[in-house]
Amino acid sequence: MDKELSLEQMQSELQAMGERAVAASRELAVMSAADKTRCLEAMAAALEARREEIKAANGLDMKNGAAAGLSAALLDRLRLDDVRIDGMARGLREVAAQEDPVGRVLSRTVRPNGLEIEKISVPLGVIAIIYESRPNVTSDAAGICLKAGNCCILRGGREAFHSNSVIARILNQAACDCGLPDGAVQLLPWTERTAVNLMLKMHQYIDLVIPRGGEGLIRAVMAESTIPVIKHYKGVCHLYIAPDCEIEMAVNLVENAKCQRPSACNALETLLVDRAVAPKFLPPFLERMRQRKVELRGDEAFLAYAPEARAATEEDYYAEYLDYILTVKLVDGLSEAVRHINHYGSKHSDGIVCTSPELADAFFARVDSAALYWNASTRFTDGGEFGMGAEIGISTDKIHARGPMGADELTSYKYLVRGHGQIRV
Amino acid sequence: MDKELSLEQMQSELQAMGERAVAASRELAVMSAADKTRCLEAMAAALEARREEIKAANGLDMKNGAAAGLSAALLDRLRLDDVRIDGMARGLREVAAQEDPVGRVLSRTVRPNGLEIEKISVPLGVIAIIYESRPNVTSDAAGICLKAGNCCILRGGREAFHSNSVIARILNQAACDCGLPDGAVQLLPWTERTAVNLMLKMHQYIDLVIPRGGEGLIRAVMAESTIPVIKHYKGVCHLYIAPDCEIEMAVNLVENAKCQRPSACNALETLLVDRAVAPKFLPPFLERMRQRKVELRGDEAFLAYAPEARAATEEDYYAEYLDYILTVKLVDGLSEAVRHINHYGSKHSDGIVCTSPELADAFFARVDSAALYWNASTRFTDGGEFGMGAEIGISTDKIHARGPMGADELTSYKYLVRGHGQIRV
Repeated sequence: MDKELSLEQMQSELQAMGERAVAASRELAVMSAADKTRCLEAMAAALEARREEIKAANGLDMKNGAAAGLSAALLDRLRLDDVRIDGMARGLREVAAQEDPVGRVLSRTVRPNGLEIEKISVPLGVIAIIYESRPNVTSDAAGICLKAGNCCILRGGREAFHSNSVIARILNQAACDCGLPDGAVQLLPWTERTAVNLMLKMHQYIDLVIPRGGEGLIRAVMAESTIPVIKHYKGVCHLYIAPDCEIEMAVNLVENAKCQRPSACNALETLLVDRAVAPKFLPPFLERMRQRKVELRGDEAFLAYAPEARAATEEDYYAEYLDYILTVKLVDGLSEAVRHINHYGSKHSDGIVCTSPELADAFFARVDSAALYWNASTRFTDGGEFGMGAEIGISTDKIHARGPMGADELTSYKYLVRGHGQIRV
Repeated sequence: MDKELSLEQMQSELQAMGERAVAASRELAVMSAADKTRCLEAMAAALEARREEIKAANGLDMKNGAAAGLSAALLDRLRLDDVRIDGMARGLREVAAQEDPVGRVLSRTVRPNGLEIEKISVPLGVIAIIYESRPNVTSDAAGICLKAGNCCILRGGREAFHSNSVIARILNQAACDCGLPDGAVQLLPWTERTAVNLMLKMHQYIDLVIPRGGEGLIRAVMAESTIPVIKHYKGVCHLYIAPDCEIEMAVNLVENAKCQRPSACNALETLLVDRAVAPKFLPPFLERMRQRKVELRGDEAFLAYAPEARAATEEDYYAEYLDYILTVKLVDGLSEAVRHINHYGSKHSDGIVCTSPELADAFFARVDSAALYWNASTRFTDGGEFGMGAEIGISTDKIHARGPMGADELTSYKYLVRGHGQIRV
């Protein structure tokens, strides 16, 4: 941000970063699980020991942010105090304590010619992570990448640049002190879009790009990148209330999925109510939504039940509100519900509330989303809730990894073939 | 090819193709394994029954190809006779007989709150395959896609356009007769680059692109595509002859890896000989290469042993010759061999010939390639040899699938979560 560089200089510095990352990743790939654990613990300790540096850099970001007129909510996200620094260190120790995702034997076969073929998990190599939000992502992302034997090149939000730079420097230094070459954790030293776009062409150094942020960021990355991208896209999540549901359970699930944390990507955005159960379900549902002050939008059939609701537009069905707003649509049976979800949804998290296991199975088979729920809140789509430990995010892609991505999902595999002179005939 | 279309018309026809493919993929995803098997067998029978149509279309391609001055080798690849049509049908029946890759339970856990989380394999959806070579790829690719529950949009070589069109039409019709909606197997009806480039932006319909062909094709696809791409890139494969190798085995492995089918991507291109074993290994090796008429190129140290060889250039170390040509370099120990392979190789298939299992393990840990060999020929990197059944190709990527890709690798997964009213607190 502070440097004025020509495109050529930027390109040559980026190339040097790429080479450092690849060289460090080769060493990291052969590091023992115990040594990686020690390295992550050393990184946690370094954040704690050097917290004054972090707070000083963060103070600068806060000052610039206030001067630039950032909202109180954004300034709060940006702030790093002792509690949050302790949280970052705790996060790294939790990742350190997880099982090692590298070197798992995924399959082993002996072929008729005696060749022994073993498929084992290996690190991906170098991962670029582009994010917009809180500076603690810098430490979370670096930790989970390193756990899976990967080096990372990070690009955080412009407003957190000084905080991110100090955190990345501390983590990289701690990795060096544990015997890794310089370059295990690097932060892009510029916040210009040009630098990101140059980085997105560096497929000779970077194995994967993970953009985390709004739709605009993800579309921009997709348009520029020649490196594989795993998208962590929006969550337009649905519940379908089937005719045979338990009414009280259904109302509770809708309330939880919508209201427990509306800003989460796994929060409910559109409710599909079967016309057959509408007269029984809607009155207690409307009562609950009034209590929770949820703004309702809906189709004409729903408006007949809910005078307080306003008519939903086509955009409402695509909308990720991230707020106390819910669209409600009455549908005729499972088929219409499935069609709606597959058309308007974002392949994230969708559920059915019903008694019949056969109906739930039909829903599971026909809805094309990462996580499907039968009689449970969509809010459970989360690495921690799924028992994966730390997560880097929730993939809405179908390639490589789908749904919550933990350290396991940041690995690839290779085949080790052992013979005694076999030739192909 | 025969149609003159405006860009808008092309775009709207492409969109219709995308919509048909998605609609068909939704039906295919819920088709039972037995029904898919029947469908693949019906496709095989249809190719056999309608072989005269195929041969007529192929005759047109052959005539055009001869008029355009295609080489005898290219014309031979293009030719479809009864033997080759039988081969296509047999390929489809073999795929039909394989185990169903969809619906495999990949993991199942019960969380402390009682949620049951099941991870199962599902089809990817719609796959685009871009290829240059023989028209039988049309049938092989469609079959393996359909086995994994995927619809495909194919784009074959311009010179095989009429053959490919007829084959795709026959397969799609057979799928329709088995109850699938129109669109399970589609071929791009134009061969212009414009059409491919428009297709490569259709990420709302297509889940994965697999380009199979030369480096130029793959780079062009990477540059244009906003859809995830799995690259089936070149094979610059190595063997490292370690000091403790069995000389006779080493010579046999080199001969097989280089000469058994030099045009294959898993054929040997560069041989790394440890300086310590050079005096013992090189004389019998050179004798064998003379017998097999392999042209040798090498570094200065090698040239001292091999007066018939010419000096290798930097390009030789990157080269995929696909011919009876071999580059030889003398190296000092495992580290130099590993460094060379990771720098010049293509992450495809590389091997070590040695006696010590520890040395082999060190090689396995440090070389970053899809398939690594200890005392075996690199020629074994192949779906059939790995026991996968049919393969769509060999991925040199690390994302999603690495090495030979069979029907299993054309699946994604989803999480099915079963509860009894659980909410997140």
